[in-house]
Amino acid sequence: MSRYRVTVLGASGYVGCELVRLLAQHPAVELVGLGANRQAGQPISALFPQLASLDLPPLEDSESLLAKEVDLVFCAVPHRTAQPLVRSLMTRQSPPKVIDLSADFRLRDPAVYEAWYGVPQETRDLLAQAVYGIPELNRADLKDARLVAVPGCYPTPAQLALVPLVKAGLVKPESRIIIDAKSGVTGAGRSAQERLLHAEVSENFSAYGIASHRHIPEIDQGLALFAGRSQPVTFTAHLLPMNRGILETIYIELADPTANADTIKTCWHKAYADEPFIQLVDAAPETRHVRGSNDCRLAAFDDRGSGQVVLIAVIDNLVKGAAGQAVQSMNILLDLPETTSLQALPLAP
Amino acid sequence: MSRYRVTVLGASGYVGCELVRLLAQHPAVELVGLGANRQAGQPISALFPQLASLDLPPLEDSESLLAKEVDLVFCAVPHRTAQPLVRSLMTRQSPPKVIDLSADFRLRDPAVYEAWYGVPQETRDLLAQAVYGIPELNRADLKDARLVAVPGCYPTPAQLALVPLVKAGLVKPESRIIIDAKSGVTGAGRSAQERLLHAEVSENFSAYGIASHRHIPEIDQGLALFAGRSQPVTFTAHLLPMNRGILETIYIELADPTANADTIKTCWHKAYADEPFIQLVDAAPETRHVRGSNDCRLAAFDDRGSGQVVLIAVIDNLVKGAAGQAVQSMNILLDLPETTSLQALPLAP
Amino acid sequence: MSRYRVTVLGASGYVGCELVRLLAQHPAVELVGLGANRQAGQPISALFPQLASLDLPPLEDSESLLAKEVDLVFCAVPHRTAQPLVRSLMTRQSPPKVIDLSADFRLRDPAVYEAWYGVPQETRDLLAQAVYGIPELNRADLKDARLVAVPGCYPTPAQLALVPLVKAGLVKPESRIIIDAKSGVTGAGRSAQERLLHAEVSENFSAYGIASHRHIPEIDQGLALFAGRSQPVTFTAHLLPMNRGILETIYIELADPTANADTIKTCWHKAYADEPFIQLVDAAPETRHVRGSNDCRLAAFDDRGSGQVVLIAVIDNLVKGAAGQAVQSMNILLDLPETTSLQALPLAP
Amino acid sequence: MSRYRVTVLGASGYVGCELVRLLAQHPAVELVGLGANRQAGQPISALFPQLASLDLPPLEDSESLLAKEVDLVFCAVPHRTAQPLVRSLMTRQSPPKVIDLSADFRLRDPAVYEAWYGVPQETRDLLAQAVYGIPELNRADLKDARLVAVPGCYPTPAQLALVPLVKAGLVKPESRIIIDAKSGVTGAGRSAQERLLHAEVSENFSAYGIASHRHIPEIDQGLALFAGRSQPVTFTAHLLPMNRGILETIYIELADPTANADTIKTCWHKAYADEPFIQLVDAAPETRHVRGSNDCRLAAFDDRGSGQVVLIAVIDNLVKGAAGQAVQSMNILLDLPETTSLQALPLAP
Repeated sequence: MSRYRVTVLGASGYVGCELVRLLAQHPAVELVGLGANRQAGQPISALFPQLASLDLPPLEDSESLLAKEVDLVFCAVPHRTAQPLVRSLMTRQSPPKVIDLSADFRLRDPAVYEAWYGVPQETRDLLAQAVYGIPELNRADLKDARLVAVPGCYPTPAQLALVPLVKAGLVKPESRIIIDAKSGVTGAGRSAQERLLHAEVSENFSAYGIASHRHIPEIDQGLALFAGRSQPVTFTAHLLPMNRGILETIYIELADPTANADTIKTCWHKAYADEPFIQLVDAAPETRHVRGSNDCRLAAFDDRGSGQVVLIAVIDNLVKGAAGQAVQSMNILLDLPETTSLQALPLAP
Repeated sequence: MSRYRVTVLGASGYVGCELVRLLAQHPAVELVGLGANRQAGQPISALFPQLASLDLPPLEDSESLLAKEVDLVFCAVPHRTAQPLVRSLMTRQSPPKVIDLSADFRLRDPAVYEAWYGVPQETRDLLAQAVYGIPELNRADLKDARLVAVPGCYPTPAQLALVPLVKAGLVKPESRIIIDAKSGVTGAGRSAQERLLHAEVSENFSAYGIASHRHIPEIDQGLALFAGRSQPVTFTAHLLPMNRGILETIYIELADPTANADTIKTCWHKAYADEPFIQLVDAAPETRHVRGSNDCRLAAFDDRGSGQVVLIAVIDNLVKGAAGQAVQSMNILLDLPETTSLQALPLAP
Repeated sequence: MSRYRVTVLGASGYVGCELVRLLAQHPAVELVGLGANRQAGQPISALFPQLASLDLPPLEDSESLLAKEVDLVFCAVPHRTAQPLVRSLMTRQSPPKVIDLSADFRLRDPAVYEAWYGVPQETRDLLAQAVYGIPELNRADLKDARLVAVPGCYPTPAQLALVPLVKAGLVKPESRIIIDAKSGVTGAGRSAQERLLHAEVSENFSAYGIASHRHIPEIDQGLALFAGRSQPVTFTAHLLPMNRGILETIYIELADPTANADTIKTCWHKAYADEPFIQLVDAAPETRHVRGSNDCRLAAFDDRGSGQVVLIAVIDNLVKGAAGQAVQSMNILLDLPETTSLQALPLAP
Repeated sequence: MSRYRVTVLGASGYVGCELVRLLAQHPAVELVGLGANRQAGQPISALFPQLASLDLPPLEDSESLLAKEVDLVFCAVPHRTAQPLVRSLMTRQSPPKVIDLSADFRLRDPAVYEAWYGVPQETRDLLAQAVYGIPELNRADLKDARLVAVPGCYPTPAQLALVPLVKAGLVKPESRIIIDAKSGVTGAGRSAQERLLHAEVSENFSAYGIASHRHIPEIDQGLALFAGRSQPVTFTAHLLPMNRGILETIYIELADPTANADTIKTCWHKAYADEPFIQLVDAAPETRHVRGSNDCRLAAFDDRGSGQVVLIAVIDNLVKGAAGQAVQSMNILLDLPETTSLQALPLAP
């Protein structure tokens, strides 16, 4: 089989590394370029020695990478930085498809983006073309996308858990949804900051971005967009003393007082019965149950007959929360079987 | 100074060890007996080598320990097991004061105890005498107590955060309070169970006791008892991949739409300004900020003008959540300065 | 392709789980039975929820499992327990091939086994047939083996690092080799013991089995057997506060004073240049570089012109140190490509 | 009691924080200044919120701090940086006593310092006055010291374990001592480097500075200086996935073939019987047994009658390996009871 020529911009971060892990063994992909401005010229194994057994091109700067003729580009650079790179790619004569993992093309309203990120959205024409991609929620839109905005890590399980329920009218209108989210430290990227040091994170637990996290407008948008209803959301993020995994504990009030957790499960079942990466479970799912995999696990529990239900959603933030979901989208764009290269079992313990 | 003769029943657990750590250097206490049925005859340093430099009596079985003439007994054995031991102590001719760290004397209504713990409360006469002891909420009651029930680890920060607010009418009546609680693994005790193994807990995060944890009725009772109002509470516990520390993220709806996080802080300040172990902070408190100390830190944050406030409360579950609070109560009972032996600074990192 | 019928005895441990992870996606294998006496009747996903997406037979007791007609059996039960099971399998009319992961068939001299393990070797006839299997050191012997003894976790990197060097006469005769070995906690198995609790292991480091570990005679035997020379070895094991990975720091004295680390690397290169799972590296290898993979990484460093060389060897104890090496041996026995189902990249971070 | 006026230069690092923890509750000390150039003007609790309950002066830059009239200064800045600061302090009219925790005054031979650290020693006059301070090995020298060089973390347990043995001639002359050292990550300081991130350190184990670590010449010097004999040493450092604690596994060859681990213990007992911070133990000491304390634990084990003995030494790298040993030296210099403010029990788990 002739393989698609693919590059990764931003290969020096954890998400970049994870993209390489998933793509290097993808049977329909040839990795023809890896970008990392600061480390240009080095092999990627200098940064990630676990990849030393692969035969990969050396790291290159963006300029060199952008010059390549390719079929598809993953852009895994920080927000704001992605905008000019994506513009450069998409304004070519025969532009590649682009899958962007930054925040730059996630929020459809540029004013919302600018308010929450504090920087301008200067690629509004491209923004209009971008498809926000959670395959389980909008697979059809992805098939013909030229530019995909891969969702943030926290918004992915939140939307997967909530969209079918809000859409079906199971959540009491106007009632506030509480999302108490916890993430492993790779969610913050590979950035040399004091607050991310082992001695700061290990044997510690903390909340951050309380009621002010940038993923909030993305969840708001997802509910409006996919479920067709606005619903107030309170969101708090926490930093776990571990590397991979997001668990969200979500508190909802039911519209129908006779409904309960079983109602939720039935609704999810209708939405997700045939989804290869969504697993509906009865016992509380744990982050290790999905470590290294593209799975999302969902469960629902009644709260002592109060009309409240507690939802638990888990993903691996680097896979379903970033690189895995991006590859899943690529498979759809390229009309490949959607699970290609995403079937490794979770690694636990 | 002649010192009070004190014993610890249940010295083989993490709470027992922590009691010994705090009491061994207490200037007014002489540790004259340490109980551990299975390990009777061994030095406590065989279980906890970090205590090897202390000159302590060998471990004894309960029978031998109960026979000693002492001034005060800490009972740190599992629930149900505490009942006969406390009865035996308190029906003596000249009974010692008893500080019980189990659940057996926490719930004033024996029917509630029996429903949640699934075992009988067979010491109802003693239960009537027991003082549930959070010094910051009912110091006066503790002064003359003969039997103290030390609160559970999760209910301690929940009540410290919520009681003044509910009492002052700041929380909207009938509105549901969400307590999303996370604990280090020592909260589960030193028990050889598969689910507590390093390989099960490390690099993992999970919810448990969802809407069914035994500390729920204790929080319900605390709000009714100390704040004088019932308020519906949803409580979820989570297991952190670390040893010490509890962080609770608490979501409340304000009664007055013009109130906000500052209103909360003012209320707390009135309640706790002179409390040596309560620290009101502006930035989000983290579990390491109180590790090894008897402190509780509280903070409040507005949620985007929604009338919701997010509270964060942290303690060290083995200290303010168990042994430290017990020693604090002892200091009150024995009319000693309340902070005696509880002033060590937190150990971080 | 018609697939080989395979069973796993002892599927409830970490090694059993890892065997299932590797075998479930093996294209030439059909998993027709999983043994776990205590949990017979349950699905394996009750123990390891991460395997829930697989279609696997329920757990069975040994008796039921032994009755199945199969091509090959993995036996991952504790030492001593393996002996009667292996006898039962191998004395059938048409016995399956057996790959045993216990210590029962590793030591060729039953008296040595009995001295170090303190239990009898009652299957000496089978012991004579057993092939101790490190494919890189004795691949030819494995091709026709009926019974394979999979090496212990610590002896695997020790022998891979040392055998070529001792065989080539690079290590000074009579000089003592120091092996300072460190392992993640899964090496101790999934056993509900106090010493393996998260609260005991985390944020702690300790030595154990100092100069008395049961893997010592196995390393002694390996050097004599594969290298043809005895060499005194001092071995100390340590428990790391992490789950997976072994790193061994090995101190050797060179026979030739003009030799150095480069001499070592050249020797390794001759021995291992074509080995798919051995990676010779220049920078110090770390356990995460092989996490989840069947790789062994080796490096050598000079010690300030002293004639001493420091070797570093790393593996994932559950893969190359147990389940992966077992599957590698199976591939050889069944004449399949040796890397089948063992090519997943390491998972890091 | 009138208290000594003390300052800490370099209060923003982990060692600085630990000095503050120990000194803030020292009855004979008044902390009158805390230095941190980058954070001058901030309270130290902005960096270390666990210290928020203390009444401490704000952070100041070095210039401001050096201007204060004080009795004693702790200098906890990086090597090279310490030299001009110490010169400035010691060339005053009435200079304070100085306790330096950098490497700048540890090595008596400036050429050795320059060779290993790659920077000049430009304060050779002061170097000649510096007393390298391990109280258990040279207490008398410390009493009148004007400038103390606090030993490195790794050299402390190495010298405590080895000096009495080498001095007594128990180690075979010319035989090589192997020191396999492992440290928690706080040993690397509070420095925003990628290699110290939680996601790089956690669930990983690695060797570094193999046979080239800067603490090697310090150990060499200590053996020559305190034991009066040179002995070749091979030293390898490793990074543990935890925060605090050093464990060294030390392999020695005995001079007398009839000697054994008991001979070692007898020798240590003679040297250390009255030492408050040295604990000779029979079972293998673990890092958690000394966490947060100024203790050093030592044990010795025979290696199967080989004439080799395996020593295990543990300390908390931030306490006995840095801040605690510095305070211990201060107590000696100021003629205070040596254990003042150093008697807190270890914190475990």
